[in-house]
Amino acid sequence: MLSKNKIKFIQSLESKKERNAAGLFVAEGEKLVNEILLSSFETTYLAATCEWYENNKAINIGCIPDKDIVSQEELNKVSFLKNPQEVMCLAKLPKHVLSITSFKNELSLILDTIQDPGNLGTILRIADWFGIENIICSRETVDAFNPKVVQSTMGAICRVKIHYTDLAEAIAEIKLLNIPIFGTSLHGENIYKADLATNGFIMMGNESKGLHPNWLPFLNKQLFIPFYPADKKRSESLNVAVATAIICSEFRRRDIITTI
Amino acid sequence: MLSKNKIKFIQSLESKKERNAAGLFVAEGEKLVNEILLSSFETTYLAATCEWYENNKAINIGCIPDKDIVSQEELNKVSFLKNPQEVMCLAKLPKHVLSITSFKNELSLILDTIQDPGNLGTILRIADWFGIENIICSRETVDAFNPKVVQSTMGAICRVKIHYTDLAEAIAEIKLLNIPIFGTSLHGENIYKADLATNGFIMMGNESKGLHPNWLPFLNKQLFIPFYPADKKRSESLNVAVATAIICSEFRRRDIITTI
Repeated sequence: MLSKNKIKFIQSLESKKERNAAGLFVAEGEKLVNEILLSSFETTYLAATCEWYENNKAINIGCIPDKDIVSQEELNKVSFLKNPQEVMCLAKLPKHVLSITSFKNELSLILDTIQDPGNLGTILRIADWFGIENIICSRETVDAFNPKVVQSTMGAICRVKIHYTDLAEAIAEIKLLNIPIFGTSLHGENIYKADLATNGFIMMGNESKGLHPNWLPFLNKQLFIPFYPADKKRSESLNVAVATAIICSEFRRRDIITTI
Repeated sequence: MLSKNKIKFIQSLESKKERNAAGLFVAEGEKLVNEILLSSFETTYLAATCEWYENNKAINIGCIPDKDIVSQEELNKVSFLKNPQEVMCLAKLPKHVLSITSFKNELSLILDTIQDPGNLGTILRIADWFGIENIICSRETVDAFNPKVVQSTMGAICRVKIHYTDLAEAIAEIKLLNIPIFGTSLHGENIYKADLATNGFIMMGNESKGLHPNWLPFLNKQLFIPFYPADKKRSESLNVAVATAIICSEFRRRDIITTI
């Protein structure tokens, strides 16, 4: 059974302030919870129906300090989902140390002021698919441990590392280390024809405003995803997650084509 | 001022049944409404604040049979948006004739049971960017004139043509006409290395289930977006709109690279 205090506590974790104070985040649903349980995250609490416990006996939950068997009605009370699932858990927020120099030979992302939780979740899923482990986010970017973001990553949150930091400082360090930064701009080079690298940072800006002009001088290359046909301008822009996907795909395509 | 009957009528257009009965759909917000007014859609009603009328004098609204000057409070009552805007309109649902033979030399999409309005809207925006004019949808696909889809197309709805039809019949006709169909599958060919065409249909399946196995025999080629690195399986899948974006980008990249 879920105590009133527990219900109140879980509900409070919708707020970033409360998540950071407790050092915990919420994950829901069989697929995501099972991924969390198999990941390096430390699960502190599990609430599930009898059926979930019955169907998931193979999963080692012995080390979770606090577990409840609850009814679906109780889970509905603490769920952040439109369609509540039969299991939810609390896990400790990870503490990653940001060491930009160690990203020197990898492809990484920089996100500036991504505001929509669904977009951030989708971008983390794209990063995971394309083997991009580190994502540096401006402090204005929506919190990756917001329940909506966690859910929309479909498990990618278990594998990518998200670093919230002061972007100006991070970019200054990247420039000092001579790591290339790629960004998008309407006046950029055709990405299909541009020379790309196998390492560096891909920088994506806000949903409606794009990359802030202040960052342009720090980009080694501005890229543009050409519309088609070239003489017929259509929509003004692509969704930021869609643009991120196309850019990451093109970086990895070059690598896959040349190395195999 | 908005009459009670008008409020009730506009609110009813959230339902597909009511939209089809009235032959109308709703669009909201300055950017989208202005695109509708400049498009081939026939606008039958406009409701906006004084400020909108003041700021948009250059737009010809003379032929709209019914217009209201309303307060923001009134607009809030009929808005389907979280953040209601200062203008909304009703426009006639378009009537496109589905003529598959006329798509023979184009690139088009087939969507089977896309259920999330945001995903469909994003896919229509991707289609528009990449010059894909015709989209054939199964009857189980969410209605493109659902207010949430219309909003998330960011204006692409004015340029792409959406055809709801019986997919089995449409695919039978496509096969008879010998037009290639490409689809995604976990066992498909690496899309970066596969021979693609400049015409044909790209078929995308449901968000959680992917392409139904029944369609696989009709595909000329099954494609796969490789994850990276190749020896490290990560997320199970990409979001359907993201996968559509990467596939459309790759089809158009080949064309752009070879023709310029």
